[in-house]
Amino acid sequence: MKERSDIAVVGLAVMGENLILNMASKGFTVTAYNRSTDKVSKFLAGRAQGKSIRGAFSIEELVASLETPRKIMLMVKAGQPVDDTIEQLIPHLEPGDIIIDGGNTHFPDSNRRTHYLEQKGLLYIGTGVSGGEEGALTGPSIMPGGSPKAWPAVKDIFQAISAKVEDGTPCCDWVGQDGAGHFVKMVHNGIEYGDMQLICEAYQIMKELLCMSADEMHKVFADWNEGELDSYLIEITRDILGYKEDGEPLVEKILDTAGQKGTGKWTAVSALEHGVPLTLIGEAVFARCLSAQKDERVAASSVLSGPQPTFSGDKAAFVEDIRKALLASKIVSYAQGYVLMREAAKEFGWDLNYGGIALMWRGGCIIRSTFLQHIKEAFDRNPELSNLMVDEYFVEKLMSAQSGWRNVVATAAQNGIPTPTFSAALSYFDGYRHARLPANLLQAQRDYFGAHTYERLDRPRGEFFHTNWTGRGGDTASSTYNV
Amino acid sequence: MKERSDIAVVGLAVMGENLILNMASKGFTVTAYNRSTDKVSKFLAGRAQGKSIRGAFSIEELVASLETPRKIMLMVKAGQPVDDTIEQLIPHLEPGDIIIDGGNTHFPDSNRRTHYLEQKGLLYIGTGVSGGEEGALTGPSIMPGGSPKAWPAVKDIFQAISAKVEDGTPCCDWVGQDGAGHFVKMVHNGIEYGDMQLICEAYQIMKELLCMSADEMHKVFADWNEGELDSYLIEITRDILGYKEDGEPLVEKILDTAGQKGTGKWTAVSALEHGVPLTLIGEAVFARCLSAQKDERVAASSVLSGPQPTFSGDKAAFVEDIRKALLASKIVSYAQGYVLMREAAKEFGWDLNYGGIALMWRGGCIIRSTFLQHIKEAFDRNPELSNLMVDEYFVEKLMSAQSGWRNVVATAAQNGIPTPTFSAALSYFDGYRHARLPANLLQAQRDYFGAHTYERLDRPRGEFFHTNWTGRGGDTASSTYNV
Repeated sequence: MKERSDIAVVGLAVMGENLILNMASKGFTVTAYNRSTDKVSKFLAGRAQGKSIRGAFSIEELVASLETPRKIMLMVKAGQPVDDTIEQLIPHLEPGDIIIDGGNTHFPDSNRRTHYLEQKGLLYIGTGVSGGEEGALTGPSIMPGGSPKAWPAVKDIFQAISAKVEDGTPCCDWVGQDGAGHFVKMVHNGIEYGDMQLICEAYQIMKELLCMSADEMHKVFADWNEGELDSYLIEITRDILGYKEDGEPLVEKILDTAGQKGTGKWTAVSALEHGVPLTLIGEAVFARCLSAQKDERVAASSVLSGPQPTFSGDKAAFVEDIRKALLASKIVSYAQGYVLMREAAKEFGWDLNYGGIALMWRGGCIIRSTFLQHIKEAFDRNPELSNLMVDEYFVEKLMSAQSGWRNVVATAAQNGIPTPTFSAALSYFDGYRHARLPANLLQAQRDYFGAHTYERLDRPRGEFFHTNWTGRGGDTASSTYNV
Repeated sequence: MKERSDIAVVGLAVMGENLILNMASKGFTVTAYNRSTDKVSKFLAGRAQGKSIRGAFSIEELVASLETPRKIMLMVKAGQPVDDTIEQLIPHLEPGDIIIDGGNTHFPDSNRRTHYLEQKGLLYIGTGVSGGEEGALTGPSIMPGGSPKAWPAVKDIFQAISAKVEDGTPCCDWVGQDGAGHFVKMVHNGIEYGDMQLICEAYQIMKELLCMSADEMHKVFADWNEGELDSYLIEITRDILGYKEDGEPLVEKILDTAGQKGTGKWTAVSALEHGVPLTLIGEAVFARCLSAQKDERVAASSVLSGPQPTFSGDKAAFVEDIRKALLASKIVSYAQGYVLMREAAKEFGWDLNYGGIALMWRGGCIIRSTFLQHIKEAFDRNPELSNLMVDEYFVEKLMSAQSGWRNVVATAAQNGIPTPTFSAALSYFDGYRHARLPANLLQAQRDYFGAHTYERLDRPRGEFFHTNWTGRGGDTASSTYNV
């Protein structure tokens, strides 16, 4: 144990404790502090025993225990508790000291706090930490943003404790200024919502249309996990489908109402604010909301009938089509998420390293997968890539997947099986590759009823035209129709 | 002209002027005021001449001109100008006087202002006014909310100037407390986004898959306007498709990039906040965003190819399928919008009259249609209706439409034509009528990686279970997968 600690962690819930143990295991000396100091004593006498961890029983003691510039990481509840703790710390800190928030903070708060602390001569980091309690202990994905000057001081610690990709590359790098770290973590969570819903739709189609058993689906997911879809979520789905209780698959006994913690919602709201079509994650969030309306659905199921699902083709070939639908939809989802990050970066003036973000997600977090390596490579090829779907690797994947994907969406529609994210992804793909969409009619409508004017295909952008569509004169014509 | 005016209007842009002329034409005496008083002089010497309209050249004069309780309607830009005008008025008003905001205000502002003014002993109304400039002159749809005590004082004026349904029923009634009027107007606008996008998808499929000319589509919309789809937006689409420039359909020369003013976005954000699946409007908003990415789409169109649309069946029969897809999707859209209003009413403590809202939209506004009469009747049958889709009338419509609807979504998917709202609507319909959705798998995933627990189908709600899915012990298991 060094005389002075390398870093302090405030907040001894499981996440905080596990991060401390992770840091200590990498050779760092850590000060542990908690507002209720009995937790400190308990931690020191328990899990922290014999490790390079010291306790602090007051803010003064905490601050005095640290090497300068001081690094104090808050693992407290997001929101007011973070602001409260910051206020308690400020009077005891010196210029250049660093406060780090590792909680589930909404990014605008990290924008605000970075500016606030920098005005006081301090430095701030808001960092996404993904991987849950066990990830915190054994190697999470860490996405830090805030004051760029703070990064060199924490880099060694963060990269040491983070997850590593096969070649040893840490799943942690500097994301960008202000709230960029928490923004990227938010998008990660939105993508997680999307990935999970995509898997659910694949499962529903296999179960309901192909009448496959949990064992059969277990084998399919095991197989998928050996190929392009190789990922943590496919792996655990394999395990879940194989898990038995009294000889029966447990998954079929679980109530089909999903909870949501709000970060998926934040992502969708942010997309709406930035005018970025984030249709897949939007549908994934709404799908959870619909699942929660269990009683209404049960009642509706006896009133609203649909077709009896029937399948007569080659089952194995259709399972391969489902795999393609999942892969292609996943490409769309990540493409949309990356567009959102790009637009946010423009608006907030962040300089994001898109390939680096993919690398941060390669390990430690819920969406980790081999797939992310291809995103990294796409941005290596073209750091200015406007949309993942037009990178050469993903073009090829989409081209080879699309016929199976279309078949799945069409067949599910005909058979009454809901595929909100498969369908949304396909519509986005088809919309994005359409040089002409029907918005010309929409613009005509807006000009008709509100004189909103339109641009023309045969004239340069920026010239606006208005037509008197009814020939009745006047600028607007919203009262022609009477019911 | 009465000695004292019945009402004053502040803000002499076209909307304000037209509302004043509308009021005067119904026998009311109106005071016209504008911050730049030259507009007042100009209005008096121009369009207001010879009518029961007097000008005011100061706030004092404005207030002195009015019968008590004073009714002052603001037709100024939404946002700070409304607050500024309110602050200017307050010192001159007496208890019971009424300030009315008729602008495009975001409902939380109306919530806030109602409470603020009631604390000062004044009354407040925030009202949606729909129908554009001409609607304001000849009869808009008016959706007032705010201080219930203010309603009797303005009812006669508002109902006199509003649009009327065939039987003379005014398209204006009390909506509810606080910002309820502006909330309902917001949902109206969201539904307008949805209706327009649905029509665009119908047009795109007819054009691209069936290779129909504008003239042929003009006839289809003329035909549709005689039946269940009879509505203002179908009517103007008919007109637009029939409009020629130099012998060519003008609509085909219009640039396909749609603008958006933000109210559709507000509706989608509000749905996310309330956890209400508002998938169709969400997709409609995102479709506008995607249309705006014209340059990217043009570039992508040469990289991402799709199937060549081909159709070999009965064209007229498929057009009828498209009509059914449009009708069914429209039912879904309104059903979702009504769920959003219901959830907002719960949260904000509003007592909304759902049938009355449908009636307010029957005339004057952009979404006016005969369709709304059926919504009114559904809520007459059951004021507690949880979802429009389970009302007997709409059940029948959905049942008879669904096979054509499925055919359109499936065919469009196979042919590479984007149908974001048709598809989203179908997935919602299929999801809502599923007693079981795949969220059981999703809950298993969440329990696997985050120990979030789950409920069971074979146990009462409220009992939570956790499974050690990996058999490795410990509560969570998020680090089993390594790439």
